[in-house]
Amino acid sequence: MAAQKEPKKIIIDTDPGIDDAMAIFLALRSPEVQVIGLTTIYGNVYTTLATRNALHLLEFAGRTDIPVAEGSHVTLTKETKLHIRDSVHGADGLGNQNFPPPNGKPLEESAAAFFVNQAKANRGKITVVALGPLTNIALAIQMDPEFSKNIGQIVLLGGAFAVNGSVNPSAETNILGDPDAADVVFTSGADVLAVGINVTQQVVFTGSDREKLASSKGKFAQYLNGILEVYFSNYCKAYNIKGIYLHDPTALLAVVDPSLVTFTEGVVRVQTNGITRGLTILENKQKRFGEVTEWCNMPTVKVAVTVDAPRVVKLVLDRLLD
Amino acid sequence: MAAQKEPKKIIIDTDPGIDDAMAIFLALRSPEVQVIGLTTIYGNVYTTLATRNALHLLEFAGRTDIPVAEGSHVTLTKETKLHIRDSVHGADGLGNQNFPPPNGKPLEESAAAFFVNQAKANRGKITVVALGPLTNIALAIQMDPEFSKNIGQIVLLGGAFAVNGSVNPSAETNILGDPDAADVVFTSGADVLAVGINVTQQVVFTGSDREKLASSKGKFAQYLNGILEVYFSNYCKAYNIKGIYLHDPTALLAVVDPSLVTFTEGVVRVQTNGITRGLTILENKQKRFGEVTEWCNMPTVKVAVTVDAPRVVKLVLDRLLD
Repeated sequence: MAAQKEPKKIIIDTDPGIDDAMAIFLALRSPEVQVIGLTTIYGNVYTTLATRNALHLLEFAGRTDIPVAEGSHVTLTKETKLHIRDSVHGADGLGNQNFPPPNGKPLEESAAAFFVNQAKANRGKITVVALGPLTNIALAIQMDPEFSKNIGQIVLLGGAFAVNGSVNPSAETNILGDPDAADVVFTSGADVLAVGINVTQQVVFTGSDREKLASSKGKFAQYLNGILEVYFSNYCKAYNIKGIYLHDPTALLAVVDPSLVTFTEGVVRVQTNGITRGLTILENKQKRFGEVTEWCNMPTVKVAVTVDAPRVVKLVLDRLLD
Repeated sequence: MAAQKEPKKIIIDTDPGIDDAMAIFLALRSPEVQVIGLTTIYGNVYTTLATRNALHLLEFAGRTDIPVAEGSHVTLTKETKLHIRDSVHGADGLGNQNFPPPNGKPLEESAAAFFVNQAKANRGKITVVALGPLTNIALAIQMDPEFSKNIGQIVLLGGAFAVNGSVNPSAETNILGDPDAADVVFTSGADVLAVGINVTQQVVFTGSDREKLASSKGKFAQYLNGILEVYFSNYCKAYNIKGIYLHDPTALLAVVDPSLVTFTEGVVRVQTNGITRGLTILENKQKRFGEVTEWCNMPTVKVAVTVDAPRVVKLVLDRLLD
């Protein structure tokens, strides 16, 4: 589809993570995008392990030409008590498959500095695909007042718009991971597309989809089939379904093929404390409120509202089977 | 329909308020319910004016046999800075129609004491219809540990479930009026049905519906047509519609004819601070969360999800035109 066009330059901010691995492989096998770097963040695992896993995934894919920049180990407000979900992704973040340690090393540059410098060097040309808490991006915004303008787009997997969260009834995991950072990103003025779990929970990768990976001889299919075991098992416990939601892959594919989702636009703010900490509220603009609200005079963002789920699943399989 | 059955005893907790007046008149003209008292609260107006208006409405209706108990002038946490919406309802709360002051007086008993005593005297038989902030009911719950069991049901107009609020993108007016009280009521274990603006905003009373009131010779229709002028005008400014949402009347009619709404059940908690103060979050129970949440081990409530809007409007007109 976009084969003749120049591929979009993307940086994936990631906490691999089983579905992160899936998203990274999809990116590497999609001619519509060119991965110019991975940046790492805590979330599914601690940042140190995220960096190790990012390097490992690139080595497995034979793409050691792609740099990895290590991200923050703490939240924007320097909190060190983090929400880590190794119970969902396995102790190693990649389904407990005993992968060997990587040979490579991350850049000296921090993730935030990498964002700032790449955005400056490629004004308006880079898309950040953010698959974890938004600390690194908020740090880039704080580091460089021009970053919001220099960056092309930020497509993020995060938020639960008008539905229950994933960690608790209010909060989705990535936003709860660093609500202050998320509020900075949403109100930064950058071109942001939030793909929330209200959308990604519509995209189910079933047991029979996984069987297609299992019966493929492709190395990516084989790798993913292995690490998905733990993930399927945890989804069965949490949601009582034989399948998984394609959170990170859907956000990634929304960059590969923007026609997969539709979106609305409005101001999004994040609750940063109390029992609904991590909650995302989109102002729908159907009403003029009688008073000045925390949503007034803030830049708008795009929020995905529908997804062509069958086409996402088909694209995942098309790109990974062989 | 329920003409042969004993009418339900109801107490209306109210901050009249134009749509409160409509709800009160509907109650007085519905054989399915017997109004055994009005209790007053701040909200559309301050409590003192709410009491005056409640007495006035009963005198207009020729129902001075119904007692009025005055409610709290401050929130549950003794806050005196209240959200009063006299801009919506007129400076007098009743559309600036220069009604004469009432002759009657409220009971010596406070609203909370009235609730406690009536619930004790009529165990399981009384329905509270709460049309304002929930301070009085929370005070009754704190005053008498048995109140939650003694009261039959609490049907409340409040909350914005999975939609934007009415005061700001997070909060609906009545819950924002006293979020702490609302959280007490939702988690009290009483039989609670919350009718939120996600439901009542589906019930539009149009300009042509109002014309039917205007051309009626009935005294209630005439009265309401007069006070609705200010309300219609404000709705036009806020929502750009020629019509009003029947918030309070819908909650009241859900008691008169419970088949008008359907509901789901789950735990509701209220955010009490920050930018989403006043937000109501219902746990939908489709997921088992991996950690203990603030929703765990709390009593469930009923939350209205659909309403037969045409039938509500028809019932409003049927009861008020003559």
